Amino acid sequence: MHGGFGGAIPCSLFPVPFYMTELRQNLITRDWVIIATERAKRPDEFTKTETQLIPTPEYRSNCPFCPGNELLTGGREILRLSDDLNWKVRVVSNKYPALSPEGERVRETDGIFHSLSGFGFHEVVIEHPRHDLTMALMEIKDIANIIRVYRQRYIHIRKDARVETIIIFKNHGQGAGTSLEHPHSQIAAIPIVPYQWRDRVREAIRHYDDTGECIFCRTLKEELEAQERIIFTSEHFVAFIPYAALSPFHTWIFPRRHSSSFDEITDVEILDLAKTLKNVLAKLYYGLNNPDYNYTIRSIPTAEQRTDYSHWYIALIPRVSLSAGFELGSGMYINTALPEESAAFLRSVKIPPDNCY
Amino acid sequence: MHGGFGGAIPCSLFPVPFYMTELRQNLITRDWVIIATERAKRPDEFTKTETQLIPTPEYRSNCPFCPGNELLTGGREILRLSDDLNWKVRVVSNKYPALSPEGERVRETDGIFHSLSGFGFHEVVIEHPRHDLTMALMEIKDIANIIRVYRQRYIHIRKDARVETIIIFKNHGQGAGTSLEHPHSQIAAIPIVPYQWRDRVREAIRHYDDTGECIFCRTLKEELEAQERIIFTSEHFVAFIPYAALSPFHTWIFPRRHSSSFDEITDVEILDLAKTLKNVLAKLYYGLNNPDYNYTIRSIPTAEQRTDYSHWYIALIPRVSLSAGFELGSGMYINTALPEESAAFLRSVKIPPDNCY
Repeated sequence: MHGGFGGAIPCSLFPVPFYMTELRQNLITRDWVIIATERAKRPDEFTKTETQLIPTPEYRSNCPFCPGNELLTGGREILRLSDDLNWKVRVVSNKYPALSPEGERVRETDGIFHSLSGFGFHEVVIEHPRHDLTMALMEIKDIANIIRVYRQRYIHIRKDARVETIIIFKNHGQGAGTSLEHPHSQIAAIPIVPYQWRDRVREAIRHYDDTGECIFCRTLKEELEAQERIIFTSEHFVAFIPYAALSPFHTWIFPRRHSSSFDEITDVEILDLAKTLKNVLAKLYYGLNNPDYNYTIRSIPTAEQRTDYSHWYIALIPRVSLSAGFELGSGMYINTALPEESAAFLRSVKIPPDNCY
Repeated sequence: MHGGFGGAIPCSLFPVPFYMTELRQNLITRDWVIIATERAKRPDEFTKTETQLIPTPEYRSNCPFCPGNELLTGGREILRLSDDLNWKVRVVSNKYPALSPEGERVRETDGIFHSLSGFGFHEVVIEHPRHDLTMALMEIKDIANIIRVYRQRYIHIRKDARVETIIIFKNHGQGAGTSLEHPHSQIAAIPIVPYQWRDRVREAIRHYDDTGECIFCRTLKEELEAQERIIFTSEHFVAFIPYAALSPFHTWIFPRRHSSSFDEITDVEILDLAKTLKNVLAKLYYGLNNPDYNYTIRSIPTAEQRTDYSHWYIALIPRVSLSAGFELGSGMYINTALPEESAAFLRSVKIPPDNCY
């Protein structure tokens, strides 16, 4: 999904330069990454080049997420955050959900063919009434509203014993897989723990058993000491490009307080996270010209209690490169940007004063 | 990399239909896949729509891989398969390799920061003199030449004790990450075993220890019995869409004979694999209008001996859908095509008589 081990780069008559690349291991995901220093691009070379000639309007009459079109939304309205005048955030069931909240988890096994009925929740969070706003341009209090809604749904869905994993995620831009322009994110709740998650939890437990420390807390501590990959810090959160970032500008936002599950976030922390998220997204917006991106909140499986070894966090992946056969074939990544340079670049991006709230 | 949990689909006023989706587990990769039956598209809806208005020429004067331009290729020529008149296949070192064959493997550890010098091989296989030919249109004997070259390089590179994993892969089309039009594939040799591979080998061993059988042989047996996902069979190979295919038209080509390492392929099997690969790629070419795709040869790490639990195979991934935040956040996949329907569709695709060799 990350990386980019595209075909051979068209050659020229220049002599082949000498260099050494570096492999780095991401101790949390366990992935090895080739940091392709000789192929590395300067940070600004990842800037999106298409200029949007037609500005996005504040409202579209045919947009099912715009105010006044609530009857067009399709799914059932689950939650509405309003003040006296208007709604601020809405949650609706996805009209074409990948999972259905009806029925029980039924597991069938026939030789190697293992299946499970597709129970689950699939909800859409309409983030703001305005059609043209993206999080990078929203006020911090608007982003805090969205996070508050995430928490409220997380707490509610977690009570359903059929749910094992809750995934909150956002697809921004066509290259990140979205088909609707109006700002929105999604919540999926699934009846299993994905193998990748189980595996990471197992590795985190192994680290805890060996050392008595949370691998996430340890990573945060060492990244803060190293400083060179930090993008933004607040009282409760730290945004940084990991040492073995899997792709260019791959960013993690860690809570400083050890906490296993996203729904443990406090009101004070929500405001602080909104500030952090706003800053990072605005730096991407101005620095790389509104790149497509995904983010996801990684939190412990719902059946687990608070633990000493697991730590929730946000993973943010700008879609500025393409994965190819090497990544598919190896499960490894190639990162053509130096994490230290990418972080220095983002630190240097200034957010215009009229977008500082 | 697969799937597609894109944003909410724009709604209409039609009532929400009732349906149940299904989750399936891929026992070899351990991944759970949501087979999104209600969102499922008909096979022909994945057809590439862009029409190439300008036909590709047989030769381009500025293409570094076209005959006559060998001095432009850039990398060092490693191997050339020729007859009396011309070369048929060439292998050159990648001019901008992600890994360098110079130096030793040096590992450094500083707290959580683990790194390794970027030793490795990165070679380009120029598959054919003709600029406009793609494997789907080549003669079977040409494809056999390419596979023979893969084997020759694999056997040679495997002797280098610094190499732990050899990955042979192909990127076809821009959506699959290639930047050069001339038909080519790549060979990468890396100084580690990627975590994903170790993990799969561990699971294959567990299955072998529990049951005494190779999980790949077992899968092949059950898929042959079920028949409904088979695309093409030959004397030595079987091409099928796995029960829990990770993405639309995700295809596996398994050797019938249990064999752990790709370089154990015999001359007779090479000819047979060429026929199988040609058939599958031609069916994709005519059925889906030349989709972008990646394939990769998955083979045991080089340090391992022949084993009873591991089985080499080819994974082929047409790039007809996009992964998004759900896949990134969960490590799961969403497949919007029913494997049984996709296989039936490909079985029905006829290859024109003038392209049957």
